[in-house]
Amino acid sequence: MSTPIALVGIGKIAQDQHVPAIGASEDWDLAATVSRHGNVPGVENFADLDSMLAARPDIGVVSLCLPPVPRFEYAAAALRAGRHVMLEKPPGATLAECHALQTMAAERGLTLYASWHSRAAGMVAPAKAWLADKSLKKMEIIWKEDIRRWHPGQDWILEAGGMGVFDPGINALSIVTEILPDPIHVAGAILHVPENRQAPIAAQVSFHHPTAQVTADLDFLQTGEQTWTIRAETDQGTMTLTFGGSRMHIDGVEQTGADPDPLNAEYPRLYRHMTGLVASGRSDVDLTPIVHVSDVFTLGRRVAAPPFDF
Amino acid sequence: MSTPIALVGIGKIAQDQHVPAIGASEDWDLAATVSRHGNVPGVENFADLDSMLAARPDIGVVSLCLPPVPRFEYAAAALRAGRHVMLEKPPGATLAECHALQTMAAERGLTLYASWHSRAAGMVAPAKAWLADKSLKKMEIIWKEDIRRWHPGQDWILEAGGMGVFDPGINALSIVTEILPDPIHVAGAILHVPENRQAPIAAQVSFHHPTAQVTADLDFLQTGEQTWTIRAETDQGTMTLTFGGSRMHIDGVEQTGADPDPLNAEYPRLYRHMTGLVASGRSDVDLTPIVHVSDVFTLGRRVAAPPFDF
Repeated sequence: MSTPIALVGIGKIAQDQHVPAIGASEDWDLAATVSRHGNVPGVENFADLDSMLAARPDIGVVSLCLPPVPRFEYAAAALRAGRHVMLEKPPGATLAECHALQTMAAERGLTLYASWHSRAAGMVAPAKAWLADKSLKKMEIIWKEDIRRWHPGQDWILEAGGMGVFDPGINALSIVTEILPDPIHVAGAILHVPENRQAPIAAQVSFHHPTAQVTADLDFLQTGEQTWTIRAETDQGTMTLTFGGSRMHIDGVEQTGADPDPLNAEYPRLYRHMTGLVASGRSDVDLTPIVHVSDVFTLGRRVAAPPFDF
Repeated sequence: MSTPIALVGIGKIAQDQHVPAIGASEDWDLAATVSRHGNVPGVENFADLDSMLAARPDIGVVSLCLPPVPRFEYAAAALRAGRHVMLEKPPGATLAECHALQTMAAERGLTLYASWHSRAAGMVAPAKAWLADKSLKKMEIIWKEDIRRWHPGQDWILEAGGMGVFDPGINALSIVTEILPDPIHVAGAILHVPENRQAPIAAQVSFHHPTAQVTADLDFLQTGEQTWTIRAETDQGTMTLTFGGSRMHIDGVEQTGADPDPLNAEYPRLYRHMTGLVASGRSDVDLTPIVHVSDVFTLGRRVAAPPFDF
């Protein structure tokens, strides 16, 4: 027995990840979409959320794949209409709006799930288990990808509130805050902002950690090989997570342990987790990754970078 | 019987407010200061915090009046040494470091007090009581002061992490978040950043609120009359808080009710509150004002302003 779910915002991430994950799941039935431009063949589409909420009282769960800036109004409308809500990362454009959604969901007894897809990558849990009893000496986050390849024409990402290179970078922070036993906080940051944009296209961040030097090097202009690597030197060896958490080496030796079941890829895992949250009447909202991004924007020093155009 | 307290950072705010407040209090005895440049006549001064912590085990409470960027290391050192800690506003340069201090204090059974001096202004509590049963239609925050008059030569305030005009502006936000019954969140902001500085010298902010238009207009270059005003239009009249929360008018009629006792000025109230927190083994850390400032820096659009020099 599958549960009807509506998907709001039929852009690249919805088509690439959400639609296939819902389609492959026995838990969920993609019963409607809301999008002005996109659609999914065979699925009823609505041009706006209010129409869908009014026309389809049978749909109790709404998944939002919109950019962060407009997302709050959609999430609030869905919660006001008594629907459970699942949010793409980051859960909002501001921290205070995330707190407001948490309060709204709690007051109504509804599930709010702020998903972090990179935390569901195959080797994140093994990396966390390996680090749990080690003393960290140094951690390097290297997150370098080509904005033109992964976000073609998505101007919003370099607008105010779009987070720039921290749109992918928050994935690294979602992994790091999951696998590290000790808390970190931003100690300094350099933000490279193109002269014709508002958000950084590259950044270097240093973090305070009780025992280790922790740094992040983020670049949105990386052509050729793409790098999503987290390297941790400890008192008992070096662990390297690559390909965004999907592969792990310890002292150069590749570790296995990722579930080979394709249903355990990132987005299927998120939707499976949502099934459990709704069934048990719980919410899951960890704002730690977005706190660090907010801290970067509060504390970071901006330097001018050359103009950028797609 | 007064409790020995140490004051760390003997700059303008310490001399103007903390030293007189402690001096006038029967609860507290200013037993030591820590400062490289400043001192208080008749009070033992130490050049660094570690020396004071080692030499004066009798001092169980430390009050920090440092700029936000260096403050974390001092607060963490004092907590590690088993001392209760009181923080000037803002409680840190980042949100994550405030969370870390909260955890450290809780683990050690120590008091951490993140003070917001403007919340202790005389008419803030009456304003909160008046707004409690009204429906808000419009709120305007107008916070305009002369940086050269109140912060002469304090370059750190316009550095990355210094918060610029939000150093005073966070006082307004600390009042607004105290007196408003409903939550707000930043919906948009324009930040005017001098070409030779990192932090904004003026800003306009719009907030989302369930029923009202809420805006803030902040300026750090206001000469002549200084303005620290919050104006609230409701379904039952208009309330105006002026002079940073110390005077209140309702429909143009000035309200009394502020305690005329000079010991009830802002900083004496903060130190009296600290007395109660330490006595009862509690902490008081409300990060809402700094969340809004972080959100402004995350979401705000930056525009260039003319170079600024003191």
